[in-house]
Amino acid sequence: MRIDQLQTPALLVDRSALEHNLATMAAALPGPRLRPHVKAHKTTALARLQHDAGHHGFTCATIREVEGLAAAGLGDDLMLANEVLDARRLGAVVAAGARVTLAVDSDITVDAAAAGGVREVVVDVNVGLPRCGCEPDDAGRLADYARGKGLEVRGVMGYEGHVMPVEDPVEKLKQTEECMTKLLKASADVGGDLVSAGGTGNYAVNTWANEIQAGSYLLMDTAYGAQGMPFRQALTVLARVISINAGGWRVADLGLKSLGMDHGNPHIPGGAVWFCSDEHTTFSPEDGHDFAVGDLVRAHPAHIDPTVAMHERMHVVDGDEVVDTYEVDLRGW
Amino acid sequence: MRIDQLQTPALLVDRSALEHNLATMAAALPGPRLRPHVKAHKTTALARLQHDAGHHGFTCATIREVEGLAAAGLGDDLMLANEVLDARRLGAVVAAGARVTLAVDSDITVDAAAAGGVREVVVDVNVGLPRCGCEPDDAGRLADYARGKGLEVRGVMGYEGHVMPVEDPVEKLKQTEECMTKLLKASADVGGDLVSAGGTGNYAVNTWANEIQAGSYLLMDTAYGAQGMPFRQALTVLARVISINAGGWRVADLGLKSLGMDHGNPHIPGGAVWFCSDEHTTFSPEDGHDFAVGDLVRAHPAHIDPTVAMHERMHVVDGDEVVDTYEVDLRGW
Repeated sequence: MRIDQLQTPALLVDRSALEHNLATMAAALPGPRLRPHVKAHKTTALARLQHDAGHHGFTCATIREVEGLAAAGLGDDLMLANEVLDARRLGAVVAAGARVTLAVDSDITVDAAAAGGVREVVVDVNVGLPRCGCEPDDAGRLADYARGKGLEVRGVMGYEGHVMPVEDPVEKLKQTEECMTKLLKASADVGGDLVSAGGTGNYAVNTWANEIQAGSYLLMDTAYGAQGMPFRQALTVLARVISINAGGWRVADLGLKSLGMDHGNPHIPGGAVWFCSDEHTTFSPEDGHDFAVGDLVRAHPAHIDPTVAMHERMHVVDGDEVVDTYEVDLRGW
Repeated sequence: MRIDQLQTPALLVDRSALEHNLATMAAALPGPRLRPHVKAHKTTALARLQHDAGHHGFTCATIREVEGLAAAGLGDDLMLANEVLDARRLGAVVAAGARVTLAVDSDITVDAAAAGGVREVVVDVNVGLPRCGCEPDDAGRLADYARGKGLEVRGVMGYEGHVMPVEDPVEKLKQTEECMTKLLKASADVGGDLVSAGGTGNYAVNTWANEIQAGSYLLMDTAYGAQGMPFRQALTVLARVISINAGGWRVADLGLKSLGMDHGNPHIPGGAVWFCSDEHTTFSPEDGHDFAVGDLVRAHPAHIDPTVAMHERMHVVDGDEVVDTYEVDLRGW
């Protein structure tokens, strides 16, 4: 099938970019050095490619992601890098034979883990990003509390998300070290083997964590792309020009329901995007470019992760040929 | 079931607000004066409530919405108020017995309608919003072209979307009249009965169109709410506080994948939202408010339509009691 037969809007994944990204990361962080974060793609078929590339543990952001990977036979070592107050669905996944490690950052989340039937936890440490995680000084106490509840404590995790957008490599390294110094201090107090942290934005320089939770590298993102990383933009949203106005603007059939908008408007090569509506994007052709009604465009969404989560499936393409179609089957909660 | 048993994040619809909005609009625009736009809620169960309130025709933005309503037995009079280049799925809906009227604004979209097996069209006229629609002066010619292709032309539609956010009622009326003057001119050239236009933002003052395509009124939207309309905010996103940081901020489990972000951050009553991540919202309690880990919050998304499209289901609630659960079954394309 060719892409002109697809119902638009549709997610396209460039096969060669996907394979390049997969191989480049597997060479940089082989095997268990990478614990791929599936929130970036929410697609079991892509997780399987990562598994086949040697990464057998996964990072998840939602219970649904854990359940889906386990059901697909990818449950060797699943970490839910997020706090939950009701862990019973995770306990059921454990009871069914998968290995699940749950992040905890407070007594109440430890209680929830134990009550829900989870057996293994990781202490989530706040290393500077204003989000979840206990204070580094409290990590040892929390680990003891968890052990007192009968839980196995596998170690620590932290996410230095605020370092990801830092562009200057010297500054990025310096800030990463500051964050990881906190995490290693907590690790010494907590014990266990795991020191899990990092992301696509600093995978190359975070040498303190023993596993990196990168996910965006596989499909990549516009903001990361600007940082000169060795990964390629793999994902676009295919749309069709459905109308041309007398004023010269074009309207394509993608919009707020098919694009993550928190980073702003999408980019349409050869066009200047004016605004997006629910199912429309209005844009003008740039000099030297023309767009007729019926023409296909491949738009670059400003933020990949929420964009993918809006679609039921993605199509792997080689040029204009659709070579595979994957369900985005880990959506929802 | 009570809301504390729901997996968060979850859409909540306040039953009394829903019933109030339904009744208020049915009184203002009874029966065929309203052609409810289902893009606002993408939920067959809500369309059925609108049907039972007397509105038997519906406006759709996607082929999937048309297919879903027809399959649910709500296909008396479905208008796809959007251009398509491949109308074969719509032709199949017509062949199965539903009535489908397709918007056209160019020769090529007329050709697509005819080729796809659609029998009835409406000429989409640009009345000022920089989006789809032919020039008013071209509407008569396009209608003749469509008739030449064997299509029944039911009339005209136009969407004065740029008038919706206008707050001053005098200015809103004036701009609505300007737009509708263009539409009525086109109507005179096109013929047919339908003059379809308008939305929740000007439903009360658009007396030129003989049917109004409002949809947002049912669940309402923050921006419309600020205009003093007689509809109530019915939709919130339920979330849980999952973490409290030593810095005092709270983290709730809703984020970029459960909130339409094109209008900005959500509002959490009693809290000041700092930022959203994929599955988190970081906020601080305002004076006099406190939030403990495990507490439920009901966030107001900045934009309802894309928010709803991110969820698999919505829960109708009476206070803290879940009285019904509807599938958001018209998502996708």
